[in-house]
Amino acid sequence: MERVKAFAPATVANMGVGFDVLGMAVEGIGDYVTVEKTDKPGIEMVDIVGDAGRLSRDPKKNTAMIAAQSVLNMLDIRQGVRLWLEKGLPLASGMGSSAASAVAAAVATNTLFGEPLGREDLLPAVLDAEEIVSGRHADNVAPALLGGIVLITGLSAAEIHRLPVPAGLHISLVTPGVEVPTAAARAVLPQLVPLSVMVHQTGVIAELIHGLHRGDIHLMAMAMQRDAIVEPARESLIPYLAQMRLLATECGALVTIISGSGPTVCSICASHEDAEVVNQAIREAYHQNGLSSTGYVTVPSIRGAYIVEPAASA
Amino acid sequence: MERVKAFAPATVANMGVGFDVLGMAVEGIGDYVTVEKTDKPGIEMVDIVGDAGRLSRDPKKNTAMIAAQSVLNMLDIRQGVRLWLEKGLPLASGMGSSAASAVAAAVATNTLFGEPLGREDLLPAVLDAEEIVSGRHADNVAPALLGGIVLITGLSAAEIHRLPVPAGLHISLVTPGVEVPTAAARAVLPQLVPLSVMVHQTGVIAELIHGLHRGDIHLMAMAMQRDAIVEPARESLIPYLAQMRLLATECGALVTIISGSGPTVCSICASHEDAEVVNQAIREAYHQNGLSSTGYVTVPSIRGAYIVEPAASA
Repeated sequence: MERVKAFAPATVANMGVGFDVLGMAVEGIGDYVTVEKTDKPGIEMVDIVGDAGRLSRDPKKNTAMIAAQSVLNMLDIRQGVRLWLEKGLPLASGMGSSAASAVAAAVATNTLFGEPLGREDLLPAVLDAEEIVSGRHADNVAPALLGGIVLITGLSAAEIHRLPVPAGLHISLVTPGVEVPTAAARAVLPQLVPLSVMVHQTGVIAELIHGLHRGDIHLMAMAMQRDAIVEPARESLIPYLAQMRLLATECGALVTIISGSGPTVCSICASHEDAEVVNQAIREAYHQNGLSSTGYVTVPSIRGAYIVEPAASA
Repeated sequence: MERVKAFAPATVANMGVGFDVLGMAVEGIGDYVTVEKTDKPGIEMVDIVGDAGRLSRDPKKNTAMIAAQSVLNMLDIRQGVRLWLEKGLPLASGMGSSAASAVAAAVATNTLFGEPLGREDLLPAVLDAEEIVSGRHADNVAPALLGGIVLITGLSAAEIHRLPVPAGLHISLVTPGVEVPTAAARAVLPQLVPLSVMVHQTGVIAELIHGLHRGDIHLMAMAMQRDAIVEPARESLIPYLAQMRLLATECGALVTIISGSGPTVCSICASHEDAEVVNQAIREAYHQNGLSSTGYVTVPSIRGAYIVEPAASA
């Protein structure tokens, strides 16, 4: 195999009450990475499409290049890789853009060399990449790599858990035309939390996990909206968030949360139709407030990243 | 029905990482309350056995009496109740002694008047009682009333969840001969928690709930021992706890935690035999350190409180 193309999906980290420990992969939007072997060691970036020239081509700063190199290191391969990156995800949108690039590159590179590593084995490589942009957090890379909803309590395999994904879950994502750098979104968080609030947070994430296992999307949504720490602190960073939450609820959304560190607004709905209505309404409301936006209606991605080329044989 | 006797079980609150939100009922040890109707309004305490004269007979301070009166109030009954309390649980032991008395009294009183209320309906009555001794917490009363392992995220019915109880779970309980008042056990807790620690706590309770739903007692035990806040703060209140944890692990325990606010030491084991060995070893070690103790080996109580007399007809 001389050329491999992989796709890795967008991810909704945090899921309301799971700050830094929960993330969900979503179908249909994400980044593509194509890789080819070369005899020259190291990673060569041939082209990046869709980033408006903003991403670094430095092999030590570009997450796709870092992840590809980490996989080569893990495999002890002296050859190099030429790499094409197609960004389907906007930068700094809260949908795991850097993670998707890293995961697609890692999966593509592993497949290019005969798939010696399993999906879980690739986690250190994508964490190496994620560390450069937002710290060694796995709440985007793990779901992009493994698919579904993932709980991360540490970086060992025994601390990464795929959770059940309730049936009938539909997702509206709207990204208003403002940027919220992850660093800014972290800076607004309180450094200390009252014990009583910690008790509340542990209770409501427990309720969310219980709801996921029961396949009860109403309980899931109820729990997701009970965050008392992170979403309230970030509310002022996301334009018109309170208004959009109300609007989404009126249009049938079960809950509306900030995707990752924002500004993407994620609404959970019980039907595709509801998600479409919510998506349109939020985009229209942003437009009326003078803000551009992009919108997407989707479902959870159970498979996570996958190989696009060569196509799997039947 | 003129006379009813009910039993309510001991409970292990917190379960390591579920401070104030999780509790588990255990079989075989608990309190008995017998009630009879009288024409005189109010609650009359006829006798208390097993408290060495220490419990209040004041209808506003005794949890069994408060709970019985609250049930009468809920039912709008003008008659009174005569009440006998047999304490099977030591006071201030961390096994939900006050909660067991309240729950047994509420269940007995409700049955005495024809069982007009369901189990969940009795929760406000037992919370009224628990409030007097340790605040309006449901982590002992809810599992004693409902049975099994219970998650409590608030005091409404929609915020109280019965969780699956993994099969094959055996429990060693050892209560050393020291008292740890709930107030003292709360006073040692930090009032503020670093955000990073809160993230850890939310992750590990999520892991525990996931383990319970998977029926994976090893994952359950691994998560239970990852508390970074409450158990470390209370460690110094429980004599020789670190030593007992090591000893229990050597004897086959999967995890050893503080039951409620202590001093009872609770070890989770994968077999009855392991739990027996652990129980004996911990008791012997306390004895060698000059401390008396009581020990009990049991399993989770799925049924919670139940009526003893009149016996259920076939």
